[in-house]
Amino acid sequence: MRLTLRWAIALKLNPMRIVIVGGVAAGMSAASRAQRQRPDADIVVFEAGEYISYAACGLPYALGGELKEEGFGRLVIRTPEQMRGRGISVRLGHRVQGVDAQAGTVTVCGPDGAVTAEPYDRLLLATGSEPVRPPFAQTDLRGVHLLKTIPDGQALEETLRSSKRVCIIGGGYIGLEMAEILRGRGLSVVLVERAAEVASVLDGPLRAPVRAALEAGGVDVRTGVSVTGLTGQGRVTGVQTDAGLIRADTVLVAVGIRPRTELAQAAGVSLGATGAIAVNARQETGVPGIFAAGDCAESLHRVTGQPVYIPLALGANRMGRVAGVNMAGGDATFPGTLGTGIFKTFGLGVALTGLTQAQAEKAGLDAVSVDLTTTDAAGYHQDARPVHLRLTGERGTGRLLGAQMVAEEHHAAKRIDVVAALLGVGGSVQDLFESDLAYAPPFSSTWDFPLVAADRLLRQL
Amino acid sequence: MRLTLRWAIALKLNPMRIVIVGGVAAGMSAASRAQRQRPDADIVVFEAGEYISYAACGLPYALGGELKEEGFGRLVIRTPEQMRGRGISVRLGHRVQGVDAQAGTVTVCGPDGAVTAEPYDRLLLATGSEPVRPPFAQTDLRGVHLLKTIPDGQALEETLRSSKRVCIIGGGYIGLEMAEILRGRGLSVVLVERAAEVASVLDGPLRAPVRAALEAGGVDVRTGVSVTGLTGQGRVTGVQTDAGLIRADTVLVAVGIRPRTELAQAAGVSLGATGAIAVNARQETGVPGIFAAGDCAESLHRVTGQPVYIPLALGANRMGRVAGVNMAGGDATFPGTLGTGIFKTFGLGVALTGLTQAQAEKAGLDAVSVDLTTTDAAGYHQDARPVHLRLTGERGTGRLLGAQMVAEEHHAAKRIDVVAALLGVGGSVQDLFESDLAYAPPFSSTWDFPLVAADRLLRQL
Repeated sequence: MRLTLRWAIALKLNPMRIVIVGGVAAGMSAASRAQRQRPDADIVVFEAGEYISYAACGLPYALGGELKEEGFGRLVIRTPEQMRGRGISVRLGHRVQGVDAQAGTVTVCGPDGAVTAEPYDRLLLATGSEPVRPPFAQTDLRGVHLLKTIPDGQALEETLRSSKRVCIIGGGYIGLEMAEILRGRGLSVVLVERAAEVASVLDGPLRAPVRAALEAGGVDVRTGVSVTGLTGQGRVTGVQTDAGLIRADTVLVAVGIRPRTELAQAAGVSLGATGAIAVNARQETGVPGIFAAGDCAESLHRVTGQPVYIPLALGANRMGRVAGVNMAGGDATFPGTLGTGIFKTFGLGVALTGLTQAQAEKAGLDAVSVDLTTTDAAGYHQDARPVHLRLTGERGTGRLLGAQMVAEEHHAAKRIDVVAALLGVGGSVQDLFESDLAYAPPFSSTWDFPLVAADRLLRQL
Repeated sequence: MRLTLRWAIALKLNPMRIVIVGGVAAGMSAASRAQRQRPDADIVVFEAGEYISYAACGLPYALGGELKEEGFGRLVIRTPEQMRGRGISVRLGHRVQGVDAQAGTVTVCGPDGAVTAEPYDRLLLATGSEPVRPPFAQTDLRGVHLLKTIPDGQALEETLRSSKRVCIIGGGYIGLEMAEILRGRGLSVVLVERAAEVASVLDGPLRAPVRAALEAGGVDVRTGVSVTGLTGQGRVTGVQTDAGLIRADTVLVAVGIRPRTELAQAAGVSLGATGAIAVNARQETGVPGIFAAGDCAESLHRVTGQPVYIPLALGANRMGRVAGVNMAGGDATFPGTLGTGIFKTFGLGVALTGLTQAQAEKAGLDAVSVDLTTTDAAGYHQDARPVHLRLTGERGTGRLLGAQMVAEEHHAAKRIDVVAALLGVGGSVQDLFESDLAYAPPFSSTWDFPLVAADRLLRQL
């Protein structure tokens, strides 16, 4: 696109002002891409916290001493100084309190308490998510922790140094990752989950090996148990449940996360049915000039085409990039999410992509699943370790719907990506079966396990 | 399809007779599928050797003591007795000498030397491949080995027990796998390669890390060196080259394999331009009733659509299945090959799929490649190890063409499969970039390396 001289001068004198609320995954991705798309834009990021662009998913590994260097600093991917060097202004400790979409301004409270109005041409809400804080967790007791930010991690680290008995409330990704980390630190760990089984996002057959690994690792797993309160004065001493008291000097609450949408609502931006901010594929909200991306926004599921709220890091980064390009005048679209996820617990790799059988049925699809237990490498090779794969397809169409995996050598769970790649292009079970996957005995069987599962599934479609 | 009673009786009295020449990957896959497709068929497999259905790719690992149980027996996947239990007659030590396509018979020489004519309704040539035996290797010297069959492996094992210095001739898959195995046995290893570098199937930038790993592992690598002869009386004592004599008490010749097509030629079956048997997607040769599958047959490359000869285990099994279904009256097609390959050498995983830049240029495609060196896990995680990825796409169309990888933690090379899966459905570089791959710090960066490479490649298409 060539600009006329007059336009070019106007742009130079009045550069586009892009304001981004939130400086973690989506916000900083957007800032980087907007800057690349439109180097003359005036880009300002307001971040309420002390850090930008940090890897929240790395917090368990910082607590586990599994980083290349000790401490939480290694999780910061980019500093405000680095962003400034790229022409992006980052203001830490600045909380955006309100949006006037008519006037095109945000009100910002700085670290000194001063409130100013800041103009924008394009505004990105990248306000992220926050851990769900159930009523019992709303307490001043020391030793009760959430885990979302670097300060959360630092506070938990401090507590753990004088801890012996930890109760983890919640058997999802974070609870399961942290169970391994805490046992690795020699702590006694009780894990409480309200649902009938841990890792309840998975279909039934995949949950049992996860629980077995936790128990083999010395975790006291209590499922179907609801927490009713906490005990203690000053520091927590226990967790009260509908199945008795659990003694603990540290409590980690990890019962899910919810989108932070207060600012969006104040600005008149609509939420979707999921409770997160509704956006189109360009990450535009219903209010002109206002975009949303990351853990505060919902997205379309690539299999069902329906809005979902599955806040994960890659999706947040991707949405941020799309928003950044579009805010700066480019044209990009977010392809939607498959909810591909993976985590490690007690040496197991657990992964899923697309729909589970339960999710597919709930979406009204005529789904069928096959379960395969085999090995990641050739069965005769000493490195071969068990893998469990559940593959789900659609009767009639033959379409792939999803996969779930538990791998006893955790890296093997990453092989879920073969299914994720095909789901992304609307691939069929036949496409998976015909995939020319890599084979050598230390890596796979001649017919690698996704191919074997696809072959079995084809006979049932 | 409903059969009339008369037809059914005729079939019962005269069941279809399927004769299969060769009882390894393609042959036994065909036998199994044909039996499943048509349980009443009379299926006979003639195998010249002593074993059927063995994992030739596992031979290096048997020699390396890396099997779950010692010895070569573990590499036999199915025995003749097991096949007989499924109604498939397997005749070991039976060499098929000729085919009379007019009469529909093969002449077979049994272990006792008796020659008989055996009728067939459908004939499968699954005669496989054999190692290229250069003139210098045509010698009676003890200590000179090829490695293709279980007896080859057993003979080499015997030799290695009194060996100190091994010379490997050939720097392809087998030579590189065996170099690691032999060093692991404490032997001195010299590897001689005629080309300018080892792993010469890879583009230049990927070859250097492979050579570096070999040398770090103590292998004396001599590239650009041609072998002219062997020395010794009784047992080999050295390898003569155009760059001097290499002392060795054991020589492994691994300079490639060629299709075994003598029987096909005798039967009047045409070969393709690659020198292997020409077949259509149903694995039919040009002669009615005669099929070919596995290492003796060529196949179409899924990227170029051109015939290629890339004999690999999965493709052989797949072709065998297709032939088996079709011989028994079903309808199956072979999707072609991507040449996806992987091997391990000195802890490195080396993999490729689709076309290299060199192959793409040779095929007349407007190809462009990007090289990425990064880590398999999140950069800050202690488990993160270097990976090198080269991704190749087509200018104009945006089509993916191929990928090559070297991973310092060998399992990570299996992640080439994401590209292989997309290549199989004609996916684009954009499709790869938009793939929702699994992320958690012990497994990947937020943007896993195939996504980063796709992003970079997109900017050059």
